[in-house]
Amino acid sequence: MEPVSAAVSAVLPAGGSGERLGGATPKQFCGLQGRPLVSYAVRAMERVSWISDIIVVVSPENIETMKSIIEKYGHKRVTVVKGGITRHRSIFNGLKVFAENQSSNRLLQKPEVVIIHDAVRPFVEEDILLKVVMAAKEHGAAGAIRPLVSTVIASGEDGCLDHSLERARYRASEMPQAFLFDIIYQAYQQCTDHDLDYGTECLHLALKYCKTNAKLVEGTADLWKVTYKRDLYAAESIIKDSLSQQICIITDVKEAVVQAGFLLHESLKNQVKDKEYATEEIQKLVDMLEKSNVPLLYPVVLILVHLNISENISFSIGLEELTKIKKFAREVKKKNILVYGLLIQYKDHFPLQETVNSAAALTMALIKDRNPELIGQLLVA
Amino acid sequence: MEPVSAAVSAVLPAGGSGERLGGATPKQFCGLQGRPLVSYAVRAMERVSWISDIIVVVSPENIETMKSIIEKYGHKRVTVVKGGITRHRSIFNGLKVFAENQSSNRLLQKPEVVIIHDAVRPFVEEDILLKVVMAAKEHGAAGAIRPLVSTVIASGEDGCLDHSLERARYRASEMPQAFLFDIIYQAYQQCTDHDLDYGTECLHLALKYCKTNAKLVEGTADLWKVTYKRDLYAAESIIKDSLSQQICIITDVKEAVVQAGFLLHESLKNQVKDKEYATEEIQKLVDMLEKSNVPLLYPVVLILVHLNISENISFSIGLEELTKIKKFAREVKKKNILVYGLLIQYKDHFPLQETVNSAAALTMALIKDRNPELIGQLLVA
Repeated sequence: MEPVSAAVSAVLPAGGSGERLGGATPKQFCGLQGRPLVSYAVRAMERVSWISDIIVVVSPENIETMKSIIEKYGHKRVTVVKGGITRHRSIFNGLKVFAENQSSNRLLQKPEVVIIHDAVRPFVEEDILLKVVMAAKEHGAAGAIRPLVSTVIASGEDGCLDHSLERARYRASEMPQAFLFDIIYQAYQQCTDHDLDYGTECLHLALKYCKTNAKLVEGTADLWKVTYKRDLYAAESIIKDSLSQQICIITDVKEAVVQAGFLLHESLKNQVKDKEYATEEIQKLVDMLEKSNVPLLYPVVLILVHLNISENISFSIGLEELTKIKKFAREVKKKNILVYGLLIQYKDHFPLQETVNSAAALTMALIKDRNPELIGQLLVA
Repeated sequence: MEPVSAAVSAVLPAGGSGERLGGATPKQFCGLQGRPLVSYAVRAMERVSWISDIIVVVSPENIETMKSIIEKYGHKRVTVVKGGITRHRSIFNGLKVFAENQSSNRLLQKPEVVIIHDAVRPFVEEDILLKVVMAAKEHGAAGAIRPLVSTVIASGEDGCLDHSLERARYRASEMPQAFLFDIIYQAYQQCTDHDLDYGTECLHLALKYCKTNAKLVEGTADLWKVTYKRDLYAAESIIKDSLSQQICIITDVKEAVVQAGFLLHESLKNQVKDKEYATEEIQKLVDMLEKSNVPLLYPVVLILVHLNISENISFSIGLEELTKIKKFAREVKKKNILVYGLLIQYKDHFPLQETVNSAAALTMALIKDRNPELIGQLLVA
């Protein structure tokens, strides 16, 4: 997907103070599965190959934080720019980097089309980015919209209802938006201090100063802006949901337990790692994962499945062994890998399908929850 | 808190199809911690002593479902009414019950003030209900508002931006709202079919037909309307958060373990249950809980803490015992009680504070997550 050979870059204002969220950390730096929200938005841009440069605009006190996030998560094509005291001033600062071509270390090419997107909308897809870019090429400006959830009303000076708007006639203006660079830059150059200090809407500036009526593009619900604490909860759940679709389990079953392994396969529709606690092998796997950089972006769940095929009814687990696993898990957690143990009992007198179902349910629960407090525990299927 | 001796009742429209949510179940019937969303909203009304009657308006096909929810969760003062094909028609049906005084089994007194609230806004507090009721008494109508999160725009016929609204001048109209009964009922009686079919805003009807400018009352962020799947995630997390503040742990420590018990107290700022797996006692506790009806409203977490004070380094846990706990936990889960096991090792050569911290962290994780898949597992601190 390459949008008709236009040079496209993006500006992400990330200078907000997050006062609506409550709490000291601005929301763009709040951790979701241990990783700051802004990193998700940057990743969403960066994985789109036809976006050349990504400008992240942050308030002066967060420049170092942002630079360390870029380094830690290995983000590419990102330039950090100092923001202004309002959203519009920050975006303007971001655009200036292209126009004035004086970014400290490298030259940034002025794009034909510039995307503006919020750092606190982590789930933007290539599809909608492409749509707004194409529409901006044609119309000069474009932005994602959504239906209104609540009726919008105007209040009078007495704090009473003045009038309400007919919900169907209006839309919520969301992000991403895209503009021909020259149009939005000209709009920012011409606009007043009042616009810069009190305005919130880039589409409005393009209309007011460049007579450009932005094309409105229907977006999906997941474009919503993380604003309140509940939105962080929602974002975390969405990430967990999507992560739990990504399972890679490794099998190396012994002859005797092939049946259990097979059923577990069926239940998990996937493969299962059932090595015993062979510390060496686990360590190797951990090293591989670490090298892959995957655990940097998301916590990886590693489940050590132990198959107990002993017929001895009074089989028991030594606490010493458990303590060893816990210690190992604690070490590995520093690398963002979550290790859990799962014991599956395979005995002739046991109802196998039930055990296998229980193992599958426990595995799914561990993968879904990624609970860091439960690492190193041995669960029994 | 009694609002100046007015008779107050409430109407909860719960007839929506939840099409924005995706999925077959209308959102008001989606389960949060196993309990339908609408039950949370009903509970929020019902615990306010000065609200006399609660009318829940549902679509014809959900009347039986709603009645069984009321019975299951023991809701009081609730009348189920058949809804119309739009939100306004449903609310009108709810109001008619008071005006026409012909509800099937009992007589409902016409209230002086009626609250209208959505079934999909589960977190409404008495405070805001009181505020809108008081304001309605004075002004005839009142409603909760919130600042706009996104800029609102009007699109032209070509799908392009026509104009954007200055965000600061407008507000989102939320719920609850309250009205002098005669005003809102008169408005509904006079309004057109077009209003009933396409309108969404009760405040608008009061203004249009009764010249009543509603008083607007600033609400809190948690009044938001559960609309999308992410809102269900958010609501579930908020409920879990608030539940995990409610811990009641029972202690009966033996002399020898008083120190561990004391430290655990400190860590949990509370009491700890450390009985051994005395099945009888646990059963008694489960019976008590069941009788209390608490587990009906929320899943109760019961953690069986086992203190291992044996100095024997190779102490081990029998799988048979574990299987027994799991079976017990599965039985008790049917009563909405989640049983987990926690083993705390207390030995002279163990770093006690570390163990205690670990136990506290595990306890908090179990309470917070209420993961039904992990019941009956024995975690080791």
